[in-house]
Amino acid sequence: MITEIAQIEIKPGHEKDFEAAVGQSQGIFKRQKGWRSFELHRSIEKPSRYRLHIKWDTLENHMVDFRESADFQEWRALVGSYFAGPPEVEHTNTVLSF
Amino acid sequence: MITEIAQIEIKPGHEKDFEAAVGQSQGIFKRQKGWRSFELHRSIEKPSRYRLHIKWDTLENHMVDFRESADFQEWRALVGSYFAGPPEVEHTNTVLSF
Repeated sequence: MITEIAQIEIKPGHEKDFEAAVGQSQGIFKRQKGWRSFELHRSIEKPSRYRLHIKWDTLENHMVDFRESADFQEWRALVGSYFAGPPEVEHTNTVLSF
Repeated sequence: MITEIAQIEIKPGHEKDFEAAVGQSQGIFKRQKGWRSFELHRSIEKPSRYRLHIKWDTLENHMVDFRESADFQEWRALVGSYFAGPPEVEHTNTVLSF
């Protein structure tokens, strides 16, 4: 299992619209191959900055199965108009947890 | 509850030493006031980049109770020599999870 970490700056004043749109996207994620969980984090120090922490079985489940699907276009149609710039996306393996 | 997100670049070649040192630090975290959980993530795209995701009851539990303690000095003594630069630290609230 891997974690997708996407850092997204939202246009100031549109934070609540963005949060509501993410809430409406649950069905999209829940039907994706290899999707495991989704967390939306909001920065305390920079309140227009959000991070998605999304767990997938494999990197390919995110980068190929989801990114190249019509559902990805639907997701971006829901939330993309609130982005102040392109998301910064990275993936991680969890080395240790306690 | 809040999440501390600390992004740390490790000196290339010292990744396994750093991971072992983090493993040795479990006792330090487990005795902190308001500490809830700890995850060590390693970037797939940039393998010398790590992120700590640490959950605390409050921001103060991290920034005051832990940061101003002797235990913080012990933690940094364990891991600090492997850092390639100062960690970038931010805190988040979880807005939504599913």
